[in-house]
Amino acid sequence: MPPHVLRIDCPDEPGLVHKITGVLFNAGYNISSNQEFVDLDAKHFFMRTAFDGPTAPHRVVSYLEQILPQTAVVKLTAIERQPIVIMATTEAHCLGDLLIRHYSGELPAQVRAVVSNHEKLKSLVEQFGIPFHFVSHQNLERTAHEDLVADVLANYAPEYIVLAKYMRILSPKFVARYPNRMINIHHSFLPAFIGAKPYHQAYERGVKIIGATAHIVTDDLDTGPIIAQSVIPVNHTYTAAAMVQAGRDVEKIVLARAVKLVLEERVFLHGNRTVVFE
Amino acid sequence: MPPHVLRIDCPDEPGLVHKITGVLFNAGYNISSNQEFVDLDAKHFFMRTAFDGPTAPHRVVSYLEQILPQTAVVKLTAIERQPIVIMATTEAHCLGDLLIRHYSGELPAQVRAVVSNHEKLKSLVEQFGIPFHFVSHQNLERTAHEDLVADVLANYAPEYIVLAKYMRILSPKFVARYPNRMINIHHSFLPAFIGAKPYHQAYERGVKIIGATAHIVTDDLDTGPIIAQSVIPVNHTYTAAAMVQAGRDVEKIVLARAVKLVLEERVFLHGNRTVVFE
Amino acid sequence: MPPHVLRIDCPDEPGLVHKITGVLFNAGYNISSNQEFVDLDAKHFFMRTAFDGPTAPHRVVSYLEQILPQTAVVKLTAIERQPIVIMATTEAHCLGDLLIRHYSGELPAQVRAVVSNHEKLKSLVEQFGIPFHFVSHQNLERTAHEDLVADVLANYAPEYIVLAKYMRILSPKFVARYPNRMINIHHSFLPAFIGAKPYHQAYERGVKIIGATAHIVTDDLDTGPIIAQSVIPVNHTYTAAAMVQAGRDVEKIVLARAVKLVLEERVFLHGNRTVVFE
Amino acid sequence: MPPHVLRIDCPDEPGLVHKITGVLFNAGYNISSNQEFVDLDAKHFFMRTAFDGPTAPHRVVSYLEQILPQTAVVKLTAIERQPIVIMATTEAHCLGDLLIRHYSGELPAQVRAVVSNHEKLKSLVEQFGIPFHFVSHQNLERTAHEDLVADVLANYAPEYIVLAKYMRILSPKFVARYPNRMINIHHSFLPAFIGAKPYHQAYERGVKIIGATAHIVTDDLDTGPIIAQSVIPVNHTYTAAAMVQAGRDVEKIVLARAVKLVLEERVFLHGNRTVVFE
Repeated sequence: MPPHVLRIDCPDEPGLVHKITGVLFNAGYNISSNQEFVDLDAKHFFMRTAFDGPTAPHRVVSYLEQILPQTAVVKLTAIERQPIVIMATTEAHCLGDLLIRHYSGELPAQVRAVVSNHEKLKSLVEQFGIPFHFVSHQNLERTAHEDLVADVLANYAPEYIVLAKYMRILSPKFVARYPNRMINIHHSFLPAFIGAKPYHQAYERGVKIIGATAHIVTDDLDTGPIIAQSVIPVNHTYTAAAMVQAGRDVEKIVLARAVKLVLEERVFLHGNRTVVFE
Repeated sequence: MPPHVLRIDCPDEPGLVHKITGVLFNAGYNISSNQEFVDLDAKHFFMRTAFDGPTAPHRVVSYLEQILPQTAVVKLTAIERQPIVIMATTEAHCLGDLLIRHYSGELPAQVRAVVSNHEKLKSLVEQFGIPFHFVSHQNLERTAHEDLVADVLANYAPEYIVLAKYMRILSPKFVARYPNRMINIHHSFLPAFIGAKPYHQAYERGVKIIGATAHIVTDDLDTGPIIAQSVIPVNHTYTAAAMVQAGRDVEKIVLARAVKLVLEERVFLHGNRTVVFE
Repeated sequence: MPPHVLRIDCPDEPGLVHKITGVLFNAGYNISSNQEFVDLDAKHFFMRTAFDGPTAPHRVVSYLEQILPQTAVVKLTAIERQPIVIMATTEAHCLGDLLIRHYSGELPAQVRAVVSNHEKLKSLVEQFGIPFHFVSHQNLERTAHEDLVADVLANYAPEYIVLAKYMRILSPKFVARYPNRMINIHHSFLPAFIGAKPYHQAYERGVKIIGATAHIVTDDLDTGPIIAQSVIPVNHTYTAAAMVQAGRDVEKIVLARAVKLVLEERVFLHGNRTVVFE
Repeated sequence: MPPHVLRIDCPDEPGLVHKITGVLFNAGYNISSNQEFVDLDAKHFFMRTAFDGPTAPHRVVSYLEQILPQTAVVKLTAIERQPIVIMATTEAHCLGDLLIRHYSGELPAQVRAVVSNHEKLKSLVEQFGIPFHFVSHQNLERTAHEDLVADVLANYAPEYIVLAKYMRILSPKFVARYPNRMINIHHSFLPAFIGAKPYHQAYERGVKIIGATAHIVTDDLDTGPIIAQSVIPVNHTYTAAAMVQAGRDVEKIVLARAVKLVLEERVFLHGNRTVVFE
């Protein structure tokens, strides 16, 4: 993993790559990987550059901000182990998968804590030596509960929040605390089913494929910009319960992939879409 | 391919497999493949049996109809080259794929004709030595146009009709002419998009997967029982046009697979679902 | 999960399904699912039947053994939580995935212990409340080490042994202790690479796909009958180390799928192949 | 499709992207898409840039050749409809798929002719209005036959040659005529099978996945640098013949994808590997 990643996102104009790489070159940095994308319709430019060099690269950001279009967003990250907090409810598959990956050093993340509105997963989390916070939502207004959760989160200063089957709808106020820094996973189907018991709807409809979608959390839960998607085949022998079970395998893999992409600073928000430099 | 396929579909009761296989055994037939499924909730039984033997098996059907539950549907088919007619509009990818497979002898079908509401694909079809019927819908009421189409179809006595990107909505009256004998392909997405320009909606939504669904045609076009589905990955570099193009590859493969399954008598209708013995 | 699964495997002859289902029908059992396969070349018959009924079905086996061909193998299993032992070395991804699934009740297995030739995974296993046995191979002949392992295994009376990245070659003597009852996972590639450092070979060859194969362990490690396989795409940006990492995701999913198939008694050995009733 | 694509491939050194984009910027060209890759081990740089602008860009190449490392390979292409010739033997699936795509305008190619060592596909090709050349290999030495083929090819000045199931081994002398400009498709399996009747070997081995690999042709047929790979699942019910048939679907899709990547100048040779800018 290269030490520094620079992300730039701004209106397109001729010569941007030339300018940006010039700044890095003149400052003595070696670019190890460079990815760009121009949305020709929206005339918007995206770039991710990984580089290393002799000195701390912080001046690079301020210098780039001077020469790039005014609305440019420039972010410099040292991709080591970014701090994250995971939120969950009662299902263990996504949380467990992330904990095992964290244990194995697969994720460039430091899982600082897990927060849940149920107690069920407490022992699973604590056995990995990670703090578990049970914040019950019972007898609380949504915002009151969210304020308690936010207090816990604040102690850990997470760069990103991962919703690993956290089954509560989040208010816009809560979402605004971590803009574009929360990742969620949800089931998805061909065709899609909206409303309660989606797997039962999928079963009734006789789908042959079950999917999962990892996305950035926006005010509209489950419709935020998509980071990653995948599917697995099912058939007529699957009951609704078997479909739920099958869905778990794809959910956990897709969420882990999305989390890795986000932690490596490969995901850019672009309206209601994402640009993902894989 | 074994010479005879027997399909049975009836309310479940104990001993059905024993009874049915007894009839075939006592009549001297050798079963080469047997597939059963019981929907335990609906208490419904499905069976597909391929067999061969010394004499014509037609008596088997009437004998089975006597000993099976009264509502049993028993169908005996010689899987050789069942007659089909393909309907298309202007897109060549699904039609062309079927024509090449037919040319190569990959499909257990005899493509008797192609019917289209446009002239565009005429030369493509005729160069394969297959009759092409242009039935324009211009200046015609839907039912008047459909009556003309039905007249053409009637001449060819197709066992199945394949809609290979036929872009006209079919009336319930037309659908009723070929109940559960018409197969359609349509795009499908995670999440699903309803209404006009689905690929443009998918592009706006930034999907990472594009799919296709082949289904039995019912009154509700595009929501009939699903036979087969598949997907391909896309990413932020795909324009809406590139997504359309990518979708074609999955559409043609899924339609061909569904057509093969149907021609081999592997697809059973079960409410709004299918049982597919692959 | 239905309470009883009957597996039958014998030379093919006319009327087998009729006979077998007759036995179950006459004994008052209700078949919930039935799968058969006849290898027409080898003239061999395979059947898996799930059923339930009023009394213990043990008489069924002896009765079937009387009426079926002499070489028939008949096995009756109550699919609840079959006892298994997992063997591992130092990698956590497959073991961890199985432990999380076991914790969540996803597997019809009781993981009785984990045996390893390294100490590294001890805390991971014990935190799940499962006994961990470190059996070092250092300064031991292969057979001496295997005898120690076999002693540990014997205490747990496992129905199946799962090799979750156990990196020691097993002697024929050891394999013979659990004939067709050991499941292994190994990398696999298009094209395949034999010998040391397969991921490095794959990298040098520039493969675009990485796979994993779960198989029954026979004397020839890594070439036993295949139960399940899957792949994931890679590209030129993957270093050999990144390919190893990518391979882990597919290894753990494929192994878990194979273990589930085996525990549900869906896998039949057939020469150097398997019949898998999915 | 942007009008001009520039490909550069040279030893890596600091500042390359800055230099190259500077040349285009100063000449008044607008870059619409830019992809780079640095092999950090081999210290080699690859870049593909699509751009448009007011004047013909031919001076750009000579100017770049002056300022880039001496061994740099610079190629400028107008991606419109590059001339290709397809070679085939008797199987129609890959050839037919390419002909349908060509007919529909899906490929940025002009299929100038088809050459075959059998007559079987003559009518299929000619019905699309494309010249078909039957060059029999009977009673000819390999090199004599290849010289005849080469004479036919020379008339069409193809930029690329597509081997669509051309079943003759090519001599190094022939391969040297179109260095890195010939694309082949062949089956591939997990594990891989070498020698005759690979599908029969795969059947005997009981594989659960069948694959296809498209590659650049080098002296070692079937082991050239891989452009694209894909797989489809199979199971115990597939005979060797059914596996061959299943393999065709994946072969034709993979070959078409590789051809498109090559025609769009997205494929770089890199030792025995490829860099593919998708």
